[in-house]
Amino acid sequence: MLTDTMFACPAAAGAADAATTEADLNQWLVGAEYAVRGEILDRSEVLQKQLDAGEKLPFEKIVACNIGNPQALGQKPLSFNRQVLSLVTNPDMLTDSSFKELYPPEVVERAEKYTSNIGGGIGAYTNSQGLSVVRQEVADFIEARDGVGPADPESIFLTDGASAGVRMVYTTMIDSSSGNDGLLVPIPQYPLYSALATLHNAHLVPYYLDEEHGWTLTGAEVERALAEAKTKGIKVRALAIINPGNPTGQCLEEKDMVDIVKVAAKEGLVLLADEVYQENVYVEDRNFISFRKVVKTMAASSDAAEAEAGKTVEMISFHSVSKGFIGECGIRGGYFELYNIDPVVKANLYKLASISLCSNTHGQLSVGLMVNPPPAGTKSDDMYQKEKAATLGSLKRRASKLEAALNSLPGMSCQPLTGSMYAFPSITLPAGALAAAKEAGKTADVFYALQVLENTGIVMVPGSGFGQKDGTWHFRTTFLPPESEMDGVIERLGAFHIGFMEKYSKEL
Amino acid sequence: MLTDTMFACPAAAGAADAATTEADLNQWLVGAEYAVRGEILDRSEVLQKQLDAGEKLPFEKIVACNIGNPQALGQKPLSFNRQVLSLVTNPDMLTDSSFKELYPPEVVERAEKYTSNIGGGIGAYTNSQGLSVVRQEVADFIEARDGVGPADPESIFLTDGASAGVRMVYTTMIDSSSGNDGLLVPIPQYPLYSALATLHNAHLVPYYLDEEHGWTLTGAEVERALAEAKTKGIKVRALAIINPGNPTGQCLEEKDMVDIVKVAAKEGLVLLADEVYQENVYVEDRNFISFRKVVKTMAASSDAAEAEAGKTVEMISFHSVSKGFIGECGIRGGYFELYNIDPVVKANLYKLASISLCSNTHGQLSVGLMVNPPPAGTKSDDMYQKEKAATLGSLKRRASKLEAALNSLPGMSCQPLTGSMYAFPSITLPAGALAAAKEAGKTADVFYALQVLENTGIVMVPGSGFGQKDGTWHFRTTFLPPESEMDGVIERLGAFHIGFMEKYSKEL
Repeated sequence: MLTDTMFACPAAAGAADAATTEADLNQWLVGAEYAVRGEILDRSEVLQKQLDAGEKLPFEKIVACNIGNPQALGQKPLSFNRQVLSLVTNPDMLTDSSFKELYPPEVVERAEKYTSNIGGGIGAYTNSQGLSVVRQEVADFIEARDGVGPADPESIFLTDGASAGVRMVYTTMIDSSSGNDGLLVPIPQYPLYSALATLHNAHLVPYYLDEEHGWTLTGAEVERALAEAKTKGIKVRALAIINPGNPTGQCLEEKDMVDIVKVAAKEGLVLLADEVYQENVYVEDRNFISFRKVVKTMAASSDAAEAEAGKTVEMISFHSVSKGFIGECGIRGGYFELYNIDPVVKANLYKLASISLCSNTHGQLSVGLMVNPPPAGTKSDDMYQKEKAATLGSLKRRASKLEAALNSLPGMSCQPLTGSMYAFPSITLPAGALAAAKEAGKTADVFYALQVLENTGIVMVPGSGFGQKDGTWHFRTTFLPPESEMDGVIERLGAFHIGFMEKYSKEL
Repeated sequence: MLTDTMFACPAAAGAADAATTEADLNQWLVGAEYAVRGEILDRSEVLQKQLDAGEKLPFEKIVACNIGNPQALGQKPLSFNRQVLSLVTNPDMLTDSSFKELYPPEVVERAEKYTSNIGGGIGAYTNSQGLSVVRQEVADFIEARDGVGPADPESIFLTDGASAGVRMVYTTMIDSSSGNDGLLVPIPQYPLYSALATLHNAHLVPYYLDEEHGWTLTGAEVERALAEAKTKGIKVRALAIINPGNPTGQCLEEKDMVDIVKVAAKEGLVLLADEVYQENVYVEDRNFISFRKVVKTMAASSDAAEAEAGKTVEMISFHSVSKGFIGECGIRGGYFELYNIDPVVKANLYKLASISLCSNTHGQLSVGLMVNPPPAGTKSDDMYQKEKAATLGSLKRRASKLEAALNSLPGMSCQPLTGSMYAFPSITLPAGALAAAKEAGKTADVFYALQVLENTGIVMVPGSGFGQKDGTWHFRTTFLPPESEMDGVIERLGAFHIGFMEKYSKEL
């Protein structure tokens, strides 16, 4: 960790007044925390270097379970998507028959569709909102997915991943100049939301997911949290919902979503629907339903209050190419869709986008490829369906294996892993471990996660990085290690955990 | 233009209290201006739609001279770069001999270098600072370019274009919470700098480039501007220099750069060196010199004051794949290098990068390809050199043609176009034109640029978007239209301008 004393010394003698120190920096950035890449990851990089140098450690490799980065752990990209992208990247291949013959015709066709629709090709700045050919594909996808009428390409912004979209919405919606704006954010939450709140001078207003009931969320809990914020005089501007949840994986039920929309509409909260895990649902009895579908269904309801809420709620929903069965994290593609958002808000979002010119074109096209798979019945479609089934099937098997293993360990309890790419088990730590953590100057979950790393090479994120109820301890781990390695990971984690629990139960 | 009355009406009846209006938004974003994509561009999009619909206008096509977007106007990408990128995009091509045989071996070799060095390929999140294989290539490039010793890959951040890098530095270096920080920015300037200042709650402290002397800059002018800011109590944190200039194209002389570094070091200003046009210098008697070379040369000087300044100045320099002879604007690749920057500053830059996970991998690899061209003597090198010479030769011819044409027009004066992609001529407008602009509720340069657009289809940016001395009027135009169209563009602009000047000289 960085401390003042480590850096108080200016870089060169004689420039004591000149050199920039922490006190000169943006204090909102200095105060922001982003746990997915924090102390544990830093330590893992040190250990990796030791392994690279041939040092002997209690494990043979570092396994990065800290981040949903599937291709880093061996997940294969979709062939169709990469074939099309390669052609668009080097359009000379499209005019060279020896290249073209090596790809199925539907690949060539899609590449030609993109190149003929983007003047200047992928090397030109696009409209700041994104390529219209892709925004149309997104609109068509949304319409087909939800079955509640058309979407408007003019309401869609293409972004460098969903994170960039969330950042843009914060920068626009949160009045940093006021210092009094707040956002309702789930606890536990993906720390993008808390980091951006600090960075934008906003209050994080926590609402709690109900762990005992599969991390579910009710409108009543949102109302409770909002009322509490109001008593503090906070102007709550937005309600962030992650569905399926990160780090918790739960998939919300429609009745709860209806209640949540009602609260948002009544209270004038902009609903930020983070739906990047919409393809990552692994149970039969629960389907992902988009907030857009819920809202538009409500708007057409015969119940007057429901219809009013559905018509008036302001909403922005986010999607990404980084998750699902695609996992194109590095390409940085995503979109957000505006629903019932005032034109002045859109104009400011557009201005913000234009200051950075546009999002990257490979990311934009990857969004197009995500929402518009190869045509049914083609060779590419056959391959695509196989690849999709293999990836999702494997994720499902790994989720179920991890869930069972975690629940078999003493003091560990894991809710059903119904969605996303993560487990967020609760651990009841022995008093001896709590005391040892305190002595080490760490929170108990950081202490535990560091011990896991030092003993097994597994990189996890302590629950405190996501938020957890006081007095409870968790960690987040992905279930992304390759299936061939999953048993070993589970075994090492289990053996370590049992030893840890024994050691600290005895020590007290 | 957006007005309050246009948007004060909430999107749905009954939600008057709920719907977000301009007053709820981030007032710093609401106040920010980014002229490169403003009123004139909006109007050009309307006209484009009219042309598409077959309407008859005084011109046959819209020519986008508002933005440095060369590939949108027909500039070809470099073959080697795109070939390598296509292989890395679809790595199956690397294991398929029928594909591999179609590319020269040096293309395959480079692609294999990248794929073997990036675990997980382009679909995995990278280190938040960027791929180390590319950062090493950048360090090697800097060392070879400057000849003043090695650069450190750990001081290099890969970014989604230079704009993203500048934004990251603002977010880190400017304490938005204070409201008292300021940045020295050239007038005229690329409006990224002013837009980000407003957005980050910072004072824009203008210094003036000397138009009469080829838009040159002296240390004395920086000192004058700084002193003025100090009298206002502004804490000036950074000094932004664009070299070669945008929109002004000038290339600074070494003696002026030394003076500027001395001022920055003495006053504790972080020098932000925007060097994205370093390959775009079109005159024989002036070479681009990087600020890094100047600073490191100073640090080794026998002159004690110079050495002290060279050793203590804090500097961040920016580069991009969007300009030069590469012009890969849409791919969004860039880097910045830290020089003499405190580790706590770097740690905060890294934290900020990690909140967005990483920049896009195609952009990162495009930076690698920019700084590490194909090996000398290969087929790819031969092609590369031809493509480079063709693009730069053509830009030089177009610059010189445009300069001569502008200087031949009545009331127009254009400084030598020595660098970048832009002309920023000064226009002396007749009093009749000033009066007509006032009546139309426009500044004179916006009035002029709109008239140019309506009559010729040429999209330019009014000087007020960049800043100009009070009472002077300018516009920025690129010299990027294809050579075959350049004569026509110049002719249409010239004919319009002569008519405009005659009309408004008579009218008074």
